[in-house]
Formats: sequence, C-alpha cells, structure tokens
Amino acid sequence: MGLLPQITSPRDLRRLSAAQLRELADELRAFLVREVSRTGGHLGPNLGVVELTLAVHRTFDSPRDTVVFDTGHQAYVHKLLTGRQDFSGLRQQGGLAGYPSREESVHDVVENSHASTSLSWAHGIAQGYALQGQNDRHVVAVIGDGALTGGMAWEALNNIAADADRRLVIVVNDNGRSYAPTIGGMAHHLATLRTTRGYERFLEWGKATLARGGVPGRMAYDTLHGMKKGLKDFVAPQGLFEDLGLKYIGPVDGHDVEALEHALGRAKAYGGPVIVHAMTRKGNGFSAAEANDDDRFHAVGIIDPDTGQSLAPSSAGPTWTKVFAEEMVEVGRRRADVVGITAAMLIPVGLHRFAAEHPDRVIDVGIAEQHATTAAAGLAFAGLHPVVAVYSTFLNRAFDQVLLDVALHRAGVTFVLDRAGITGDDGPSHHGIWDMSLLAPVPGLRLAAPRDALTLREELAEALDVDDAPTVLRFSKGAAPESVPALERLGGPHGIDVLARTGSTGERTEQGQRDVLVVAVGAFATLALDVAQRLAAHGISATVVDPRWVLPVSPLVVDLARHHRLVLTLEDGVRTGGVGSCTAQALADAGVDVPTSVVGVPVRFWEHGSRAQVLAAAGLTAQDIARGVAERVAGLADTSDPGGDPAQDAGPDSVGPGEPVAERG
Amino acid sequence: MGLLPQITSPRDLRRLSAAQLRELADELRAFLVREVSRTGGHLGPNLGVVELTLAVHRTFDSPRDTVVFDTGHQAYVHKLLTGRQDFSGLRQQGGLAGYPSREESVHDVVENSHASTSLSWAHGIAQGYALQGQNDRHVVAVIGDGALTGGMAWEALNNIAADADRRLVIVVNDNGRSYAPTIGGMAHHLATLRTTRGYERFLEWGKATLARGGVPGRMAYDTLHGMKKGLKDFVAPQGLFEDLGLKYIGPVDGHDVEALEHALGRAKAYGGPVIVHAMTRKGNGFSAAEANDDDRFHAVGIIDPDTGQSLAPSSAGPTWTKVFAEEMVEVGRRRADVVGITAAMLIPVGLHRFAAEHPDRVIDVGIAEQHATTAAAGLAFAGLHPVVAVYSTFLNRAFDQVLLDVALHRAGVTFVLDRAGITGDDGPSHHGIWDMSLLAPVPGLRLAAPRDALTLREELAEALDVDDAPTVLRFSKGAAPESVPALERLGGPHGIDVLARTGSTGERTEQGQRDVLVVAVGAFATLALDVAQRLAAHGISATVVDPRWVLPVSPLVVDLARHHRLVLTLEDGVRTGGVGSCTAQALADAGVDVPTSVVGVPVRFWEHGSRAQVLAAAGLTAQDIARGVAERVAGLADTSDPGGDPAQDAGPDSVGPGEPVAERG
Repeated sequence: MGLLPQITSPRDLRRLSAAQLRELADELRAFLVREVSRTGGHLGPNLGVVELTLAVHRTFDSPRDTVVFDTGHQAYVHKLLTGRQDFSGLRQQGGLAGYPSREESVHDVVENSHASTSLSWAHGIAQGYALQGQNDRHVVAVIGDGALTGGMAWEALNNIAADADRRLVIVVNDNGRSYAPTIGGMAHHLATLRTTRGYERFLEWGKATLARGGVPGRMAYDTLHGMKKGLKDFVAPQGLFEDLGLKYIGPVDGHDVEALEHALGRAKAYGGPVIVHAMTRKGNGFSAAEANDDDRFHAVGIIDPDTGQSLAPSSAGPTWTKVFAEEMVEVGRRRADVVGITAAMLIPVGLHRFAAEHPDRVIDVGIAEQHATTAAAGLAFAGLHPVVAVYSTFLNRAFDQVLLDVALHRAGVTFVLDRAGITGDDGPSHHGIWDMSLLAPVPGLRLAAPRDALTLREELAEALDVDDAPTVLRFSKGAAPESVPALERLGGPHGIDVLARTGSTGERTEQGQRDVLVVAVGAFATLALDVAQRLAAHGISATVVDPRWVLPVSPLVVDLARHHRLVLTLEDGVRTGGVGSCTAQALADAGVDVPTSVVGVPVRFWEHGSRAQVLAAAGLTAQDIARGVAERVAGLADTSDPGGDPAQDAGPDSVGPGEPVAERG
Repeated sequence: MGLLPQITSPRDLRRLSAAQLRELADELRAFLVREVSRTGGHLGPNLGVVELTLAVHRTFDSPRDTVVFDTGHQAYVHKLLTGRQDFSGLRQQGGLAGYPSREESVHDVVENSHASTSLSWAHGIAQGYALQGQNDRHVVAVIGDGALTGGMAWEALNNIAADADRRLVIVVNDNGRSYAPTIGGMAHHLATLRTTRGYERFLEWGKATLARGGVPGRMAYDTLHGMKKGLKDFVAPQGLFEDLGLKYIGPVDGHDVEALEHALGRAKAYGGPVIVHAMTRKGNGFSAAEANDDDRFHAVGIIDPDTGQSLAPSSAGPTWTKVFAEEMVEVGRRRADVVGITAAMLIPVGLHRFAAEHPDRVIDVGIAEQHATTAAAGLAFAGLHPVVAVYSTFLNRAFDQVLLDVALHRAGVTFVLDRAGITGDDGPSHHGIWDMSLLAPVPGLRLAAPRDALTLREELAEALDVDDAPTVLRFSKGAAPESVPALERLGGPHGIDVLARTGSTGERTEQGQRDVLVVAVGAFATLALDVAQRLAAHGISATVVDPRWVLPVSPLVVDLARHHRLVLTLEDGVRTGGVGSCTAQALADAGVDVPTSVVGVPVRFWEHGSRAQVLAAAGLTAQDIARGVAERVAGLADTSDPGGDPAQDAGPDSVGPGEPVAERG
C-alpha cells in the first residue's frame, strides 16, 4: 500500500518528508495514467500539475483558504488529495465530475470549465473576505498561460493590481500551451521571463563594458552589484506584471515541490497580490503524452496506459468535425477570400487541414472569442470571408460582438459551432444548448443546422455566399451520418427538405392534410424520423421536414403548417427562445392557428453523463416524444370532434410495430 | 469666414500652416461648444481630441488608410473634418448620428458604441489588407485609456503584439478617465509612463553612485551614457507594451499638433504595430467642463455655452436611476452585506450616493462587465450580496458569466439594468432591448421589471432577499412615475398586480370572463392602461396585470389567462424570446388554449431618435397596439361565432372617447 490511500485531506500532506513527497508524486502520476486511461479524461493537464497541487495544498489551508482552478479540468490531483480517489466512473453518470463540483467536496469552489474566470472569482472572494474582516484567509488562483490570453483575465489583473491589500496568490501554471502552444504577446513575455536572468546577465555585461571604459574590474563589479536594487527603481520595472503593480515571484520549476513551496510561502507571507510563475510540462512523466506535440494528451479517450494508443472502439463514422475539416480544405482551394479563425483550438474545431494548406489564412487568436469575432468583422470589412470555428458553448462569450460588430455592420462572417447541443461528459458548462436562443434575436443573422455530412457541405457553401450578414452553422459532437436523404426540396434550391411523409391520413382530415408537421433541427432529423414512425404506429400521420436554415423561421415552414393539425419542433437546444419558440411565434404572426409542441432541452443545468443518458433524462427520446405527441393529437381530436373516441378514430390507420410505414427517399 | 468651412475632406488639412492649425483647433472647439450646447451630446471627449484628430488626418490618408474610433462618441471632430458640419440635428431623427455611421461617410468604419472593440477591428482590417497584398494601407485605432481596461482590448493587444508585420498604429488617448477617472493597474502603468523619465533619472543617480564608488565623474557619465542602449536589452524592457512586444512612442502632449504629427509620423514609418501614447484633457478649452470633476461633461444635455449650466426643461420627475440611487442608500443602511459594483459608471448608474456613505462597499472595476459579473459571484460565495448596476446594453458583454459563474453556482447576485428598452439618441448599440431574451434561458434566474418608483423599491428589496440565484431588475431611461397603483395583488405578497379591469364584459363571454388579458412589462404599464382604455372604446374588455417578476412566467398569469379570450403582452424589448414569447410557451405548456399577441420591439437595429419616435416607428403606441388587438379580437369572434358581426357584437359595450371606462385603484 502506497502513500496516496493515506491522504484523506490536504492536512495529511503536511507530515510528509521531501522523499515521501516525491514518492507520492510518482504514485499520483501512476494513478492518473492508469485510471484516466480506462475512462478517458483530461490527462495531459493533470500530469503537469502534480507537484504544483501538492505544494499549494501544503502551503495553504483549504477550505479556510480558498483554491480556485481555472478551467477546472486541471483539478484531478486536487480531487485525489481532497478525499476523492475513486476515479472508476470519472465523467460518467453517477461518477466523479471531470471538473470541480461543489456537491462533491467543500474544497471545490468554481465549477466553470470556461477559461480565464479564476482571477475574477479569486478577487471577488478575497474582497468578500476582507469586507468581513477575515483578512487571514488567503485565496489562491491556479491559471494556465493559455487562459491569460482571455480578456477576462486581463480585466481581473487590472483590478487586482489596484488592490494592494488583498491576500491573493495567482499561480501561473505556465506550460506554454492551451490545447496548442499559446500565442501572442503574453506568451512572448512569459517566455522572456523564463529565459532571462536579468541581473546576472546585466552584471556580466556591465563588468565588460565598464572594463572597456577603463573602470577596474573589481570596482565595476561591486558598483554594479550595489546598483541592483537602485536600478530597479530607476529603470523600467521588472516585466509586465510588476508594470501593473503586481509582485512577481519566479520563474519556479513547477515539478520541484520544494522550490514551489518556497515560492508559495513567500507569496503567502507577502500580504498583497502576488504572481507565482511556475514552469510545468503538460503530460509530464508520461512519455507518450510528452511526445505528442499536437496537444500533449490534453483530453484522451480510452487509451493503452503504456503506449497511449487509443483503445476506443472504432467510431461509427467520421465526426461532424472531420466532415467540416475536409470541406474547409475544398473551400480553401476554391476560394481565396476565405480565412479561418480559431480561439486556441485549431485541431479540435477542425481547421488544421485547412491551415496545413494555407498557413497564412488561419488565425489562432488564443482563448479570445471576443477578439475572434470582432477581428472577423474587420477581416470582412477588408474584403475577406472569415469562418470563425468555435465550440457552441464558447460563443456565449461573444454575444455582444456578434450583435454589434458583426450583425450591426452587416459583416459577412460565418460562425461554425461545433459541439452544439447536449455534449455529455464535460458536464453543465460544456453543453452547447444556448446558441440558438442567443442568436435568434440578432437582426439579419441566419442559422443553419446540417442534418448530415452532405448538408453540412452544402450549407457551408451557402453560408459562404452570404457577404452582408452573419451566418451560423451548428452541429453536434460525435459521428455524422453521411446522408439522411430527402424526398424532395420545397421552394427551390435554398428551400426546405421534406424527409418523410409517414402514416396514412385519416378520413377526418381534409384532402392533403396530415396530422403532424415535424420540424427537425440538425442532427435531430433522425430522431424526428423515428418519432414519425412511432406516431404512424399510433395511426397518426406526419410530415417530417428539415428547414436547413432554421433561423429565422422559413415562410415555407409556415405554409406547410397550414396543412397540419399540430406542429412538432425538435431541437437540441434550450426550449426557451429557440427554433420551436420562434416557429410558434411565426405561425401566430401569420395567423396560422395550428398549435405547436416545442420539444427541446428544458432550461436547467445538466450534469455529466453520456450524450444519450442526458438526452434521455431530458425526455428527448423518440419514445417519450411520440407518446407526448400522441396524447396531444388525441386531445386535438377531442376538441374538434368532442363525440369521437380518439383511440378508435386512430384505429383504422394504426400500424403494428415493425411494419414499414415510412415513405422515405 | 473661418477655416473650418473650407475643410471638406481630410486632404484639405495638409496645406495648413502651423498657425492655421492652431486657428482651426480653436474654431473646432468653439464649434463644438456652441453646437453641442444646443443639442446635447458627448462634449467633453470631443474637446479632448481636437488636435489628436487633426494630427491623425494630416498624417494618414483616410479612407485609403482606415481610422477606427473606439466608443465612437469621440468622433465629432472627425465628422467635422470629413464633410459633416451641420450639427443642428445631432443625435436627432434625421440628423447626424452621435457615433460614426457608414451611411454618413466613407470615412466612418466602426459604428459600435461599446468600448474596447477598436483594436480587434483594426487588427482584423490590417490582417485583411495584408492578406490581399495591400501592405501600404495603414490602420489607425484611437482608443482611450478607459477602454484599455476592457478585456477585449487585451485580447487584441496580445494578438497584435504577435503580428510584427502589421501596419497598425494604436493611439492611446490618455485622459486618465472613462466617465470617471480610470482605475486599475493599467491606469497606474500609464501614469508611470507619463511621469517617469527613466534614463535621465538613471543617469543622474548612476553618476552619484559611481562617484561614491570611486569612479571619476566624467568616466562614470560617459560609461553610463554608453550603457543606455545595452541596458535596455539586459534589464527589463520599457514598460508593459514593450514587454508584450509592441513598439511604444510617447508620451506626447495630445494638445500639440506638431508633437503629435511627429510621433504619428514615426509610427507610420515604423512598419509594425506601434503604440502612440497621447496625453489629453477631457473637456479641454471649456472651463466649465474642465472644472467638472465628476465627468468633465462626458455627455451633456442642452446647456448654456458660456457657463455649462443645464438649460433643459425641468424633468417630469425623478429618473429611474435617481430612485434606485436613493433606495440603495436605504438598503446600505439596512444591510451590511450589500455591496455595489459598477463598470466605470458610478454616477450614471446611480451608485454614487451609496458609495458616499459606504466607500468600501462599492467597487469600480473599469470597463469590465465580465469581471464585474464573475467577481460578483466570488463576493456572493464569500457571503455578501452584490448589486451589479449596469446599463442593459452592456450586460450583453457578460452573458457567459451570468450563465456559468452566477447561475450555475447559484450565486445570490442582483443585476440592476438601467437604460433598458428603447433609449433613443445614442442609436442602435445603446438600446437595451436584448436583455430579456438573453436572460430568459438562464436557469434559476428571475427578472423583475418595476413599473414605477414604488415597485422599483419593493422589487429591489425582494431581489436582495434571494441568495441562491441571480435576480435582475430592469428599468427604462428617463423619468419614473412615482406610482401606477394596483387594484389588488393576486397570490400573496410576492404575487402579481392587477392594475385595471376595463370595459364591460360582453354577453357572449362566460361568467367572469373578459376579452383580453394585458400583461405589461415594467414602464409599459402606463402604455397597457392606455391600450386597455382604447380597447374599451371598441367594446373590448380587458384585465391589465403587472406580473412584477416577469421571468420566468408566473403560474398566476397562466391561471388568469384561462379566463380571457386573448393574451396581449407588452414589452420594451425584442419580440423574439422575450416575455411575450415565454408567456405564449407557458400557456401552451399548461394546455391553455388562449392565443397570445406578442407586442414588443421588432428584431432589427433602430437608428437614433427620441425614445418616443423610435417607439412610434416600432409600432409601440397605444393607438397602433389597440387597433391591432381590436382586429385580432374581431377575428376571434368570427371563429367562435361565425354568424355574428363582431362590430355589432361590440356595440353594446362600446364607450365613446373620453368617457371614463377604466376601473383604476
């Protein structure tokens, strides 16, 4: 039995010797490789913060002192040291969350998985403690160099620097990367801090210079050495952080617990805000991770713990991301005016292939969605067509810029939102379920939700042809069906697709009328077809359409609705203010008196679990939806024909399970 | 006739002598004071950039070179120099916009009035020119020191610094203020740059030190002087901007055209991104403005051009802001746990009185809504109840933080959104019409819209009692009615207010049923009462309710709807995804088959004009609304009783104009 099982709270760390700490670090690393290999998870970042987390918990006294992790995926070691050592269900329903969780532990404070928030949290908490006279409580924020590229972090630094009394320690976990190597002036500056040993080099150089000037060596040395402190006051201050008025300690070897504790101890004693600059290596101690220069095993699936090779069953087909990545290569060859923009996620969003062919035409802005969006408006002004490729959840950061910089200026910018809808194992802050509600009220903006690989390619091309308004494509996580074929396209080449007409029309409906118009958004097309088949089994006829461009609502959908008794909308986004809500409003505005069943994700935060589990919990299964619609249709029958028995009425049209009822192209 | 009328384009500036430039500057300043005094507008900022704008337009060649103004309210001088010298209708319908406008001039590029965007715009445009081989086109961004506190500016700086080839000139218009004095580390650093003459002081000090060390004076001086360049390479670089890798020129006197032109000329010739640090004085040259330390006449109404005294007719009563400001003083005395947060707008949002009593309990974070929101979550975690007071339009910047830092963490934070709804003369980017659509899908969030001073006080108190979820108050610009009384409150103290029951119920309706349930949001309560009176004149009965807490939709509203034939919602926000849309969905979800007329602001951008003018253009007048509802009700009558004549049916209940029909408390 090793040391790790004996650690039930951070206080247990205090009695360990230096040798034991090294032993524990080895155990932690072995644990992470072994366990995360089985479940998948954020392996690389956590291998990088083993010693850092040990030092933080030995120096500070959580939960009396507060420790905040930026982008909480670097908190696995913290979990292991705070009483959570069963990683068997990591990121799975009922198992440990992949991010800090207040429900799991009093040592967890910030659950947010979006980057660059920790400094604001930490400053707010520190101000709160101070206002209540709890000046002995320290607040520690652990933030990566990548997260420092985000604007929020700057806003916080600017405030923290002005607040000289706060007991706030900012640990910069500098591994030179976010997913990919960190870009920009801040990265450059951190690199300078890492490599410059300012005074030492100054002393050497100064001696030589003074000697050349005739000053005797010893005298020059003593003089220069004596000048060190004075110099600092007269020449420019020591780097960006101190320019702002922040005490800077470092750089420190982030894999040396003793050095870290020394630095953190000084920071703790300082009595004001301090930056501790720790240099770490992502994936440290796992050779397969260290050798992977794409992302150092930032997040892995199930892998071989020795080789790092993926052991996941071969995928159900190419992912949406891959389809987009391939199509962008085609687009890049076809059109010289298209440029790609990514916020520090070149490979995850699928712009890497395009970048390989056109390195000048892809811009990585760092973790900076606001800048990405407004710079895109600038690129469009200059005559280009930018494609901003970003996870749906991260566009939440740039609503104001989409509205005022892109839409108000009628800029032809295309946003490609990957991981839209319920994503699953990353938990509440990674679901991409707010995008459609957020974007629906943006004037002029058009949003398409491809249902398969073919429509993704088609709709991307259509989006790129719009040069006077924002366009948006949104698609899910996971495998994309190659084709969910249409029976026909209504309304010309840019019209809407009819995917199926199912069930027979009952005798009660007028000529050409059917029971339910199912409006399917994106990947929910297959769900819609399933629902329609189940409705047919209840004797309910349906027309399934994919409007392709789901926002604003197409007049073609409104026209079709006139010929149905109920409209059912299906979307992988929150029910409030989304496509269903807009469809109901469009019908009302057009005077179409057909009720709308809006099916989408209920407005709440959804815990981690597989996508299928979360969808089921949200009632978004074909079975649940079909049952609800069947009841609703029965109710409609009651209203329009109070004497009839809806169950009997449905009788003649009902089809047994398994019988082919769908008329599919 | 002076020089100004002869300037029809920036090129006309080139032939002017130094003396003529000074003369023109005087004319510009006199013009601004004279004209803006008549119309109101952003006087102080423009008085500060007279020489700066002259120098920019003499050094660069707009529109071939692109000039971007951050927070475009500092573009008046630019307008005067680019062919727009009729300021008589400034910020009025049909007159010049108060911000740049692409419709007005090819010299205007960015219309956005939100701060901190200019660097992203400029970088995007510069990248776009470069990608198309137009490397001779310069891009100039003029940004205030206040705007540099915004995170977007940091994201852009970080990117620009990494892009050494871009011909990008960033003019920092440093007046030490946004509305109020700029706060934070950046301000501190700019102040340091302003006041430090690094090398000169180093030389003096070094001579003395070396002399004490026995080095002869002359030798020491020569040696140190020779060290200047070398020092720079070895000791830390020259300030924050150069730490990031940005060339820095300055500080320059921002009221000396010659010095500015010299600096801008160097920047233009440099061939890479450059910061030019210009020191200006807000309100420069207008003694009344210079003497006003609150905001240096940041934005004025109609004033006396000599004394600066307000000449506006006395207001219709205290503004919403003033009511909030007074109530916060009461709250501050009553509760020690309440803290206020402002994003650089202490006085405009009405936190100054609270701050005067509790200086420790108000935090000005700079132009940093993201940090404000997340720091508030941190303060709540620490046990306080923060009130984030912000203009509605600026909360758009912090959606992600409201969602994930506040709501996901169930933080008891109250957002107070001033200037909600149509605001008027500031144009499209200042209307606060997106807040309700944005916030409706935030789980757990509750939003109240006070209808008068009394309910503002009441609902603020209720909001402050919620400590496990975000609460929001939103109110309009302008005067608040002291009281719009209620007939009764349904559902207990936290229920909904019935404001009126108007018209008689027709014989066709069942016992207790009325025609229209009017759901009024906030300041639209008075509009709703007016609509109800007009409906009564058409023989249509109505119940007018103020739900007080409008999001999420109250079950009491749903219950009331059951007893009406039509629900009419009235909101001063976009129609898509707002209160009306949510109300219609709540009715559908509850199986209440009553149609909803959703009246709100159509989804488009609304140009400047008075609030009344914009509302009228949006169809939001009692007359238009009542006409639409009357037609709708007539249509309903047709459906349920096809044989009847709705006009005749309405007959017996109709009331002549002017007759008292409302049953008001």
